[in-house]
Amino acid sequence: MLRLSFMVGGRNMSEALVIFTPSGKRGRVPLGTPVLTAARQLGVDLDSVCGGRGICSKCQVSPGLGEFAKHGVTVAPDALSAWNAVEQRYKDKRGMLDGRRLGCQARIMGDVVIDVPPESQLHRQVVRKAASARRIAMDPATRLFFVEVAQPDMHEPSGDLERLADALRDQWQVDPLIAGPHALRKLQPALRKGNWGVSVAVYRDHTGGPWRLLDIWPGLYEGGLYGLAIDLGSTTIAAHLTDLTDGRVIAAGGIMNPQIRFGEDLMSRVSYAMMNPGGDTEMTATVRQALDALTHSVSVEAGIDPSLILEVVVVCNPVMHHLFLGIDPVELGQAPFALATSSSLALPARDLGLTTINPEARLYTLPCIAGHVGADAAAVALSEAPHLSDDLVLVVDVGTNAEILLGNCDRVLACSSPTGPAFEGAQISSGQRAAPGAIERLEIDPETKEPRFKVIGCDLWSDDPGFAEATEKLGVTGICGSGIIEAVAEMRMAGIVDGAGLIGGAEQTGTARCIPEGRTHAYLIHDATAQGGPRITVTQGDIRAIQLAKSALYAGARLLMDELGVDRVDRVVLAGAFGAHISSKHAMVLGMIPDCHLDKVSSAGNAAGTGARLALCNIAARAGIEREVKRIHKVETAIEPRFQEHFVNASAMPHAIDPFPELAKIVTLPQVSHNTGGGEGAGRRRRAR
Amino acid sequence: MLRLSFMVGGRNMSEALVIFTPSGKRGRVPLGTPVLTAARQLGVDLDSVCGGRGICSKCQVSPGLGEFAKHGVTVAPDALSAWNAVEQRYKDKRGMLDGRRLGCQARIMGDVVIDVPPESQLHRQVVRKAASARRIAMDPATRLFFVEVAQPDMHEPSGDLERLADALRDQWQVDPLIAGPHALRKLQPALRKGNWGVSVAVYRDHTGGPWRLLDIWPGLYEGGLYGLAIDLGSTTIAAHLTDLTDGRVIAAGGIMNPQIRFGEDLMSRVSYAMMNPGGDTEMTATVRQALDALTHSVSVEAGIDPSLILEVVVVCNPVMHHLFLGIDPVELGQAPFALATSSSLALPARDLGLTTINPEARLYTLPCIAGHVGADAAAVALSEAPHLSDDLVLVVDVGTNAEILLGNCDRVLACSSPTGPAFEGAQISSGQRAAPGAIERLEIDPETKEPRFKVIGCDLWSDDPGFAEATEKLGVTGICGSGIIEAVAEMRMAGIVDGAGLIGGAEQTGTARCIPEGRTHAYLIHDATAQGGPRITVTQGDIRAIQLAKSALYAGARLLMDELGVDRVDRVVLAGAFGAHISSKHAMVLGMIPDCHLDKVSSAGNAAGTGARLALCNIAARAGIEREVKRIHKVETAIEPRFQEHFVNASAMPHAIDPFPELAKIVTLPQVSHNTGGGEGAGRRRRAR
Repeated sequence: MLRLSFMVGGRNMSEALVIFTPSGKRGRVPLGTPVLTAARQLGVDLDSVCGGRGICSKCQVSPGLGEFAKHGVTVAPDALSAWNAVEQRYKDKRGMLDGRRLGCQARIMGDVVIDVPPESQLHRQVVRKAASARRIAMDPATRLFFVEVAQPDMHEPSGDLERLADALRDQWQVDPLIAGPHALRKLQPALRKGNWGVSVAVYRDHTGGPWRLLDIWPGLYEGGLYGLAIDLGSTTIAAHLTDLTDGRVIAAGGIMNPQIRFGEDLMSRVSYAMMNPGGDTEMTATVRQALDALTHSVSVEAGIDPSLILEVVVVCNPVMHHLFLGIDPVELGQAPFALATSSSLALPARDLGLTTINPEARLYTLPCIAGHVGADAAAVALSEAPHLSDDLVLVVDVGTNAEILLGNCDRVLACSSPTGPAFEGAQISSGQRAAPGAIERLEIDPETKEPRFKVIGCDLWSDDPGFAEATEKLGVTGICGSGIIEAVAEMRMAGIVDGAGLIGGAEQTGTARCIPEGRTHAYLIHDATAQGGPRITVTQGDIRAIQLAKSALYAGARLLMDELGVDRVDRVVLAGAFGAHISSKHAMVLGMIPDCHLDKVSSAGNAAGTGARLALCNIAARAGIEREVKRIHKVETAIEPRFQEHFVNASAMPHAIDPFPELAKIVTLPQVSHNTGGGEGAGRRRRAR
Repeated sequence: MLRLSFMVGGRNMSEALVIFTPSGKRGRVPLGTPVLTAARQLGVDLDSVCGGRGICSKCQVSPGLGEFAKHGVTVAPDALSAWNAVEQRYKDKRGMLDGRRLGCQARIMGDVVIDVPPESQLHRQVVRKAASARRIAMDPATRLFFVEVAQPDMHEPSGDLERLADALRDQWQVDPLIAGPHALRKLQPALRKGNWGVSVAVYRDHTGGPWRLLDIWPGLYEGGLYGLAIDLGSTTIAAHLTDLTDGRVIAAGGIMNPQIRFGEDLMSRVSYAMMNPGGDTEMTATVRQALDALTHSVSVEAGIDPSLILEVVVVCNPVMHHLFLGIDPVELGQAPFALATSSSLALPARDLGLTTINPEARLYTLPCIAGHVGADAAAVALSEAPHLSDDLVLVVDVGTNAEILLGNCDRVLACSSPTGPAFEGAQISSGQRAAPGAIERLEIDPETKEPRFKVIGCDLWSDDPGFAEATEKLGVTGICGSGIIEAVAEMRMAGIVDGAGLIGGAEQTGTARCIPEGRTHAYLIHDATAQGGPRITVTQGDIRAIQLAKSALYAGARLLMDELGVDRVDRVVLAGAFGAHISSKHAMVLGMIPDCHLDKVSSAGNAAGTGARLALCNIAARAGIEREVKRIHKVETAIEPRFQEHFVNASAMPHAIDPFPELAKIVTLPQVSHNTGGGEGAGRRRRAR
């Protein structure tokens, strides 16, 4: 082929300058180079599934004619080749924004600035809803490619898989390729139906190794590929069904962990396994069935075929980790609390009882940090990244065990504290999982002692007009974790509960909502018994459960602070699988967390679940957290005498936090008359330290 | 540590010369070096499972005092350190041959010659029973190692698996290690029961990659590790349970392929899959269940726990390959006969329905050569190695399809020929699988026309004294593949059958054993109806089935000879899953194979099964055959007009093979009177070509 080339003013006139935005990457390419090719040569993040065949439209670009001045480039009107028939066909069939071009069709004919819109970036970033400003950059382990495969030749026999592997190597640098029986089964019909053009979903571990064929479709596949991020807690299981191409959560669901019937907290489940031969396998089967059912129901909710779920990421504490994997957790119940394995695992999801999703789907578990500090803590570390913080940050992820991280870019410590399931609404008389109908917010008027609340599934407060009608179908069914924290803190602030945690009677508190219950009192929030509904109260037992839980949480945090030799932290991040984000104010009123400026306390929602999603969407995140957990210093609460000491000293509920005027403004603290002062004293002791 | 070193006559007197036999490897090592350490440094093949801890005794050696003259080395009586307490304890407990030492205990104190007996060689060679002199050098993918693992430390938490991986890396250079859920489940109890000393079975693919933990035992495991070599034929399935440490076959078993009910030959099974939606999955389930049951029964026969089976190698034709893997074989029924995959596969055995063996067991299938030339042909190539032959060798492996290889070290051709199941005793009126009670050898007296025979399970001939008693329990139940070949050939030689394949009546043949059956005749071999047993005959239909089968076989061989442009081969190897080795004489009388000197025709038994065993015992064999199959030139019989031509011309049964006087001596050929000469003519035409 003859190619003419001439120089004008020191420039090679057979080449053109191309600048891509927003990356700013630039370079000179031969005239006639397709934009997609130029993008690849210059390392610009421009997506393509069909490999430049003009059928997938993932490589849409906007010639940035308006940008030239900024970049000092003169863009001629004919800097790109003319709109062509392939583009017109695509636009007629599926529509395309005016001004857009297909990067594989438009050829560079002169100096040009080309904008890659976010949806055309393969590694596009997804804004998280959470307070933290970090984003998820998409780089999943599972990728979709369109390839054209050579047809079989009887005289040079070779397998269809081998020709597919050749095509993937030549067209996408995907090499080598392996396949399991389920994918192999679909291979031959797909190739023939697609007339030797197929879309394949292939997976590669972040540790390298071969690419694995997960699924195959005839022609260009335009449906979705999904992953499931699972936060497998002792009490609740949450699943986020996530689009693997753009990171969107398309459905979320949760259920109670059915293992609760073997014991409410982890140690009672370990005991069950020790006392009952086969008890661990029974618990394994139970949790796997629950996950399988949850997977199915989330798929139904999203309206997708569950076989399109190709990846699962699971985070959980060490006991759940072992029980889910089918390992007897007995060693986790006694010193030295040895994990069977602390590494991350990449396994066939099918081997762990996930039968409704794609039979070739892969499952990844984050690494565990120590015998009591699990993959859930690793996920929180991934989500909240204390190791990247300049400030000294305390991250508490509240569940049946609280995962607690303290540190900054110099050093990170971690421990786990057995708070029990009260913060998840379990072991609470009117408690329930965070689900529609559950009270998730609550306020008590300090004057009238009357409550108002919000339930999950309704945006109105209970004293707003129309609340009764709006919740007629939902009902008001109980109190979830965030609701009980607010309820107890509000009761304390309204003087219904004293510093030692005792609920006053009607004559002490001045409200008929304080009703006798046995030898103690309960506070009535909502009574729907006349309509056949529940009567929702906070009992003295509920207050005790919350006191135990918050003391454990506080003690764990203090232990890490002792270990680091600090008496204050710069900021606090509260996370957990609550109904709503936990309220900083109420957490501090309860004494869940050490003293800190209130505006330095933030809520991160379900940080473990977010960590699972990060790992699902980005393989570099997997590699990163695997490195990081090795650097985290673990503190074992179970054998640390100071933990008990902190725990005992932390049971009271503070009434004012002197160093912080912004809190004092919020907290008004009438004393109930039966308060003996012991609880207050404990509170003072703690604050004075 | 201070080390004294001085030189005498140019030699460093702190070192000694050690020579290992039979390898002849030699070198100088520091005085005090254990023999095992010296062996490793010099690359001598000396086994050890316990890594030099004096507990496994695998490293036994014989100080070769008698050898010194030959090697010119003066061996002092104290060339090895004194017999020590560890050796004495081992000898007392388990016994050890006099003169033997433990290589890990005996230290080299002076120049010495050390013999490594065969049983102490890790890659010891196993003599095969087959005629071929090649041996199997043991080098299995699965290995056993004893390791001492560091105990957990609460203050530096790490998983038990991670510490096991560290130990395997440091003590055995096994790195990296991965583990599935079933092995992980056994890890913690084994480590504690073994007081942190465990034996592990680990597997590594011949393509490299990580080591996989398959199983684990507390302390030094002294039981067996087993593999299963499976020849999965269209009609019969044969399994050889093999000791992975020494290659011994400890049990063998076979069953009929239950897929026969979907069609006797491969093409009828492909048709079944095409005509019946879900038919392929039905056949897949059937064959997997059969393999699972066979695996179990072979384990019972050997008296081993099936969970000790850690590896399975499967060889089969392409249709069985696809059906076993769960792939619809429909593409194999039509040109261009595209395989879903032609590569070897390494998969979890559990994923293919093998549920009774170790849940972490691995399964390897040999590569397929072409759409009609499968992993069974690859196994025959591995076993008989035509590519290493200087002679031009024709290898025929007779089954329901015959796998045919022709070539030498320059070039190898392969094809498959649809012989039908007659050679396996199926579609034969009194036919049966090669099992106890089946007639496997048969002779007919040319004068009296009386038969004598042997059955599987009894060493006596039927006319030997005591035969009736010896077979009373067995019974004489039918004729297996090798028996029917001998029966038809003997009938031809005794003049009971003419050259066209017609059985004469009693008046023509002069024996009352030729009995009328419909419009044709049958030859009576054995009548046990009086005792309630079967009446075993060879019918005219049986002769026709054998004629069709042998014509197909012959035509396939001729096709390859045409392709190579030769009219003669130097030698012929006959293989197949017969009852006994196929008789060269009878095969040639039948015209199964092209003319060849009778002493150049040998029997190789079940060559495909042997190839499977080779692949099971030696990972280099897997790599080797994967390379080799890519070089084999494939010839497609189904689309080759000359195949039909050869087939039609080959139906007659020759009566004398002139060029070979040694055959003429054997074959006496009285003509039966109804012979019209047509068959003879065909036979002559064929030979004259």
